[in-house]
Amino acid sequence: MKAFFLTLLLVASAVSASRFDLTYPLRLRSDGSETLLEGITCSAWRYATSTNNIRDWKTVPTECEEYIKSYYETHKFQDHSKAVNREAYFYAREIPLAKDGRDVFIFDVDDTVISNLPYYREHGYGTEEYNATEFDTWLEKGEAPALPETIKLYNKLLNLGFKIVFLTERNAGHIKITQQNLRNVGYTTWHKYFYKGSKYTGLTSGQYKEQMRKQLVSAGYRIRGIIGDQWSDLVGEAVGDRTFKLPNALYYI
Amino acid sequence: MKAFFLTLLLVASAVSASRFDLTYPLRLRSDGSETLLEGITCSAWRYATSTNNIRDWKTVPTECEEYIKSYYETHKFQDHSKAVNREAYFYAREIPLAKDGRDVFIFDVDDTVISNLPYYREHGYGTEEYNATEFDTWLEKGEAPALPETIKLYNKLLNLGFKIVFLTERNAGHIKITQQNLRNVGYTTWHKYFYKGSKYTGLTSGQYKEQMRKQLVSAGYRIRGIIGDQWSDLVGEAVGDRTFKLPNALYYI
Repeated sequence: MKAFFLTLLLVASAVSASRFDLTYPLRLRSDGSETLLEGITCSAWRYATSTNNIRDWKTVPTECEEYIKSYYETHKFQDHSKAVNREAYFYAREIPLAKDGRDVFIFDVDDTVISNLPYYREHGYGTEEYNATEFDTWLEKGEAPALPETIKLYNKLLNLGFKIVFLTERNAGHIKITQQNLRNVGYTTWHKYFYKGSKYTGLTSGQYKEQMRKQLVSAGYRIRGIIGDQWSDLVGEAVGDRTFKLPNALYYI
Repeated sequence: MKAFFLTLLLVASAVSASRFDLTYPLRLRSDGSETLLEGITCSAWRYATSTNNIRDWKTVPTECEEYIKSYYETHKFQDHSKAVNREAYFYAREIPLAKDGRDVFIFDVDDTVISNLPYYREHGYGTEEYNATEFDTWLEKGEAPALPETIKLYNKLLNLGFKIVFLTERNAGHIKITQQNLRNVGYTTWHKYFYKGSKYTGLTSGQYKEQMRKQLVSAGYRIRGIIGDQWSDLVGEAVGDRTFKLPNALYYI
């Protein structure tokens, strides 16, 4: 009987909520207590993931697919990306460069400089579990579009005189198609392109990227900034002078 | 003439924008270029500040007062706070405690455990410049309410057996009123209360808090988690096993 009223209450609150304000997740706590009503909204889920409070999430909650779709398909995602890229430029233009070609800005690749949104559009906006085979098929087409706000930053940094370093977890087999994809959409030049060689297979993305950054520093480069869509692009050692976190509400690495 | 059309365009875009979607900031770049239209929305401003991309901001842009008011006065702020506090609990309940009384959880005070929203309501929701005299008058009333989602976490952590440490930048003269305020609203017990003694006056909030955390670690405590509303509560050395960032769209420290 108690459960029945709880269910009624849940349905009532679900009906009264607006379309993009769905409560997530409606699940029992692992201790079995009746805490179903302590759900959070999809907005709160996006807040808590974007600030790295909720970590290691596997998929977007199915209840939030429409909310996340709306985030990407309206102006919101691009607005947020613009705020970050613009701030990176405001920061970068104040840096006096040494003219020795050692001032670098590191860019992650996937969903930092080129977008996998066309893939995720066909795969439930992050609500489906990651499928490496299907994702590779998409990647190997080499058709990922440039992220419009990041490419503006890229061009401005080149004009300022920064050296661009691409640091990606994509592997050796994908170098050619990735570089072709990058050139096709406007990223025509770079100083270094780090891919994840087979000897790094055992490392997480964050560990591998940290090692590459340390190599850069050892070689005398000054990491002036890093921009990425994942927190693992931006934490650990050798993170340079400043980091910039782009939005990604589709997946967590 | 060119400026006239730019102005027209700006007015047109402002009119077409919805109430809470104001473009900010409509300012010239410092290089004098005509980039007025490269504004971002208040939503993007909140995103970029909450993710620590925009730093050292002095006030909420006046254009965003209504947006920030709405964030606090609807359910949104509390929803976001809930998501963070809940995640902190999900994390904490999995930690096996050593029963030696050395497992601590650090809480910041202002806008982490008690709320200064009543003050900011009377001061333009962060759009007015910080006024230490007026703020102290508010603080010395000792009437800051408990943040409803944080006090739930506080009680749950006590039940789990964590030692609670309050770490605040409030000074020695405010110990009595602050502790009375805390007790009045339900924070009735704690293991340690760190205030900012006069010898730390020269340190930033972040530097001071880092020193106190190092003292804790030197004394044999294990910092299992830290929760705060400012990034400066959560970065630097001795940040423990995990950090939790509460929303604060009103001010930056």
